[in-house]
Amino acid sequence: MALSRGNLFDALPSLDAPGECIEILWRTSTITLERIVSLSCATPVGEWYDQAWDEWVLLVQGAAKLRLEGETTLLELRAGDYVLLPAHRRHRVEWTDPEGPVIWLALYHAPGS
Amino acid sequence: MALSRGNLFDALPSLDAPGECIEILWRTSTITLERIVSLSCATPVGEWYDQAWDEWVLLVQGAAKLRLEGETTLLELRAGDYVLLPAHRRHRVEWTDPEGPVIWLALYHAPGS
Repeated sequence: MALSRGNLFDALPSLDAPGECIEILWRTSTITLERIVSLSCATPVGEWYDQAWDEWVLLVQGAAKLRLEGETTLLELRAGDYVLLPAHRRHRVEWTDPEGPVIWLALYHAPGS
Repeated sequence: MALSRGNLFDALPSLDAPGECIEILWRTSTITLERIVSLSCATPVGEWYDQAWDEWVLLVQGAAKLRLEGETTLLELRAGDYVLLPAHRRHRVEWTDPEGPVIWLALYHAPGS
């Protein structure tokens, strides 16, 4: 079996406009591991992520601000910061650093497995 | 439910001698996510890691060299490099950067789940 390997900083997608690009690094029936590269990204106004799976997310490079529903203070993230978002904990990305691509590592896991 | 959060570069253990220090970030019945901090670390001569679970490992900071059983070339890792090691793929750490500390993120997952 060939080893699956790579580098989180390699082959960064060219983002010419605000948005995000997702690469799946590992997927099984109970987990999905993704690299997400975002540029000047914000969840559309009034929308929330409401996920069926738990998510552990790490900010690998850049800076970002998350809003958790019901919280008045934004969660400010810098490189190395991680947070575990339980399933159905509604949240949105308010801001990512426009200076450069922001790199995330996101691990989704089916609750109860 | 309080959010579980932190930063991979914070609260680095003080390693006065070669070795490693493991912190569990998330554990369920099918995954374990760990931060591993190592200093001048090498698997003891003649020993191999032979794990029952698949392991995806990311080198967050520093540099390291892995040996996979049966391979003549060492796997040289730098920051951002990741590799998926299938269960029972025997491997050992030959070297980590003594300038360290070297920081790893390791995700173990039960095969077949």
